Amino acid sequence: MSTEAAKDTVAAAAVAAVEPAVKNEQKPKKKQQEQQQAFTLKTPKGTKDWADKDMIVRSAVFDHLTSIFKSHGGVTIDTPVFELREILSGKYGEDSKLIYNLEDQGGELTSLRYDLTVPFARFVAMNGISNIKRYHIAKVYRRDQPAMTKGRMREFYQCDFDVAGQYDSMVPDAEMMKILCSGLVGLGIEDFKVKLNHRKILDGIFEVCGVKAEDVRKVSSAVDKLDKSPWEAVKKEMVVDKHQPEEVADKIGTYVKINGTLKDVLATLKADETLMSNESAKTGIEEIATMAEYLEAFKVDKFISFDMSLARGLDYYTGVIYEAVTEQSAPPEGAKEKKEKAKSKAKKSADDDASEYVGVGSIAAGGRYDNLVGMFLGSNSKGKKAPSIPCVGISFGVERIFSLIKQRQALVEKIRPTSTQVYIMAFGGGEGWDGFLGERMQVAGMLWDAGIESEYLYKKKANPRKQFDAAEKSGCPIAVILGKEEFPKGEVRVKLLGQNEENEGDVVKIEDMVDIINEKLSDLKINGLSDVERLLQNK
Amino acid sequence: MSTEAAKDTVAAAAVAAVEPAVKNEQKPKKKQQEQQQAFTLKTPKGTKDWADKDMIVRSAVFDHLTSIFKSHGGVTIDTPVFELREILSGKYGEDSKLIYNLEDQGGELTSLRYDLTVPFARFVAMNGISNIKRYHIAKVYRRDQPAMTKGRMREFYQCDFDVAGQYDSMVPDAEMMKILCSGLVGLGIEDFKVKLNHRKILDGIFEVCGVKAEDVRKVSSAVDKLDKSPWEAVKKEMVVDKHQPEEVADKIGTYVKINGTLKDVLATLKADETLMSNESAKTGIEEIATMAEYLEAFKVDKFISFDMSLARGLDYYTGVIYEAVTEQSAPPEGAKEKKEKAKSKAKKSADDDASEYVGVGSIAAGGRYDNLVGMFLGSNSKGKKAPSIPCVGISFGVERIFSLIKQRQALVEKIRPTSTQVYIMAFGGGEGWDGFLGERMQVAGMLWDAGIESEYLYKKKANPRKQFDAAEKSGCPIAVILGKEEFPKGEVRVKLLGQNEENEGDVVKIEDMVDIINEKLSDLKINGLSDVERLLQNK
Repeated sequence: MSTEAAKDTVAAAAVAAVEPAVKNEQKPKKKQQEQQQAFTLKTPKGTKDWADKDMIVRSAVFDHLTSIFKSHGGVTIDTPVFELREILSGKYGEDSKLIYNLEDQGGELTSLRYDLTVPFARFVAMNGISNIKRYHIAKVYRRDQPAMTKGRMREFYQCDFDVAGQYDSMVPDAEMMKILCSGLVGLGIEDFKVKLNHRKILDGIFEVCGVKAEDVRKVSSAVDKLDKSPWEAVKKEMVVDKHQPEEVADKIGTYVKINGTLKDVLATLKADETLMSNESAKTGIEEIATMAEYLEAFKVDKFISFDMSLARGLDYYTGVIYEAVTEQSAPPEGAKEKKEKAKSKAKKSADDDASEYVGVGSIAAGGRYDNLVGMFLGSNSKGKKAPSIPCVGISFGVERIFSLIKQRQALVEKIRPTSTQVYIMAFGGGEGWDGFLGERMQVAGMLWDAGIESEYLYKKKANPRKQFDAAEKSGCPIAVILGKEEFPKGEVRVKLLGQNEENEGDVVKIEDMVDIINEKLSDLKINGLSDVERLLQNK
Repeated sequence: MSTEAAKDTVAAAAVAAVEPAVKNEQKPKKKQQEQQQAFTLKTPKGTKDWADKDMIVRSAVFDHLTSIFKSHGGVTIDTPVFELREILSGKYGEDSKLIYNLEDQGGELTSLRYDLTVPFARFVAMNGISNIKRYHIAKVYRRDQPAMTKGRMREFYQCDFDVAGQYDSMVPDAEMMKILCSGLVGLGIEDFKVKLNHRKILDGIFEVCGVKAEDVRKVSSAVDKLDKSPWEAVKKEMVVDKHQPEEVADKIGTYVKINGTLKDVLATLKADETLMSNESAKTGIEEIATMAEYLEAFKVDKFISFDMSLARGLDYYTGVIYEAVTEQSAPPEGAKEKKEKAKSKAKKSADDDASEYVGVGSIAAGGRYDNLVGMFLGSNSKGKKAPSIPCVGISFGVERIFSLIKQRQALVEKIRPTSTQVYIMAFGGGEGWDGFLGERMQVAGMLWDAGIESEYLYKKKANPRKQFDAAEKSGCPIAVILGKEEFPKGEVRVKLLGQNEENEGDVVKIEDMVDIINEKLSDLKINGLSDVERLLQNK
């Protein structure tokens, strides 16, 4: 029986006993004095259990992304959930404070992984790999302030695809865009755009605007806030906090407002002689021009918004950067005001209340990082450092994508947490009637061996009503009924559930049962799609 | 390109630089002085990276077990990798010292999960669930002394199926045996037996032999060693370490030697009047008798060895207990002597050398535990404790099963780490020949959108030889060739790779390409099975 069904039938006593302890920590812990037990029944802060339909939907999302990653020649790896602490240190800048450490229990110092990219770079360096396309779907850990409604958790999944290796310019980079777009379109998300930019163009812009080399990263991290804050706030940060002259900030301001189709923005930038005379900007612009051709070949150029305001937080990017956003993932109008209001209203729970007014952020993002693997490569005996392995990657934010899919309520409702197709029942009664438990087990065994998911009531004897109720709760579309007289003759009834209660089903020979059930199951699919497939494709 | 392929082409410089640091910690760290870098490129002790073929085989094992679990009405859950420390404490007895703690970074005290059973019990109690069939495939963590060759790791996978709820006696218990047997048979493991026993019978035996109630658990833990040690050693432990009178130990000795088919052992036990007059033993024997009927209905009775020497380590079992072993998983003849010899020979690396002579142990195990959920259920406001939720479960040892499957070398060899089916090439040359990169991308896009896994060389231009070499390395069975003259006419060549080099392939219209490739791919499967399916089924 499913959890959902189980919840309905839960003993009242158990509910009374467990409920107060189950509450999320944000909620007031009422009646705590009444509790005698020492356990607080909860998961750690910022983590949660996944169950029921959510698991079905999430695995279907994983399966879809996996099939795309494989389709592009990806191999998968599995790295330990914790790494030696020194592997992670010096990779995340300020965010290093969010790393979970394991206790020193007499041995190596280790920490939970913060992302999948650094472990991947460690893997590539450690195995002397010169090229690989790898995907990795796994949990990562960040001791951030959790905001469940925003999908910001301390334990969450990343779905990454990365290509390491020296290749012709922009070829794997363009393929990342194809993977990104197929990934989202295949999940029924079509109203997205991919913001695209290039670190070298940004660096060039900063340079021609008069930012000193040593200030580039901090100015860039101010620009990174443009998706959440208006230009005025960002300008203030540049001038006040980051000590840039106002005219420098204003010049940057005119550049970062540029966005549009690849064709248009490329034309604008190429016409900018100051920018084109900057080595870094020129390289970046030429690379995007090359990429634009390939994106046309992949027919994904229509999704791209070439956007000078995209900066991306992480330090390690060295080339193209990109981020997919949907209408639904952007903060709604007036979100900031509402957030402020909520904050002043109720200080304590502000973070969670306010988060209702915030979009889910980007649903997939990535970029090129050519120097990270090099950080793990030592020098050889002659003191010559091994060349780094250039990489480019994409990471899908599953929790965020998941929350978009969950909005398709009519389709979500059809999803069942169980996959059982057949409920096996026995009808009889009268003298010598033992409930046919052994016979139900025998039929279940036949169906399982044929790959047909089946259940029956775990009772020696049960009346038809109880068995029909259990079948309904299980959500099985088909019943196999063992009749007291029919079964000994080698016959069973196969009946579609949930339609025409009066119909007693078809009497079939037991040796034909599997074929007949398989036929009925394939008829039940609408347009050949299962409920989960229809949910993902939003059809 | 796959990792395997990548390794071949790795730059010599990179190898030279990386190799010394890559070495496993057990091996001597030569040339360490020559290393300039601060990083030790390794995974933490007792953990490893999984990659290449291993990942393909392991996921196929997971998929197989998942389909069985679903087939029996299982729903899956995902719990956090760490739990509040108090949830885990007091559950594992002596083994609690093996629990990994997270550092106290100002917040809750948490620990990595030690198994999936305690988090499951916490989940059931926390959500007030009265019945659920759940499966969970995930990593668990134990700070044990690692022995890689034995498959004993600090981070490893468990594949668990558990049924919680109050049901008619032995019905879900018998289904566990069906799941166990289908799970193994479906993985091509047929030479196993399932040792079966019942805690209540064991307790009864100890009682009638004169063991005091307070000594039962420690005597039981001595019996638990019978699969590794001879009776003489176990007897010594009972008498010397655990202070049992010799005649008590001898009596136990006659009982624990009993094993055989369900029918035979049931007959022996039922004929033992002393035992049958013991309440606990009688209940256990009757339960096994009921179970025996159901196992016949499921046609799995032939796999069962009813074995009085099976005790199982964990304290929390309260009913049936079981453990599947294969010929291959038992320690070979003379293993103990060889182990001793190895130990005296080379003290330092003894554990690893010696472990070669030890079997992999049980490949699946489980039992009934009726009181664990109750440990998490508090008392209600009237001080009345909520009733526990009875549970029974099975856990597959994936690492051990994996090592059995890896022994099917001829079939393992056929496994490719990548799933790409088509390698797209362009042949041309002469004036104006640009390498058809955009065109190859266009064709790749068509194939990907049709769900056909495809790759092409990430180079603007490449000669046919280079493209054929890359295709061979990728392992793709089919090539699509874009000819300089043919492609503009809307035609491509489809060619089977690895056979008949002279054959130039069939010229097909581009709109028929997908159908023709799908046909060829289905022809390539032997008896309709993929290479991975053939490996799992050992065919």
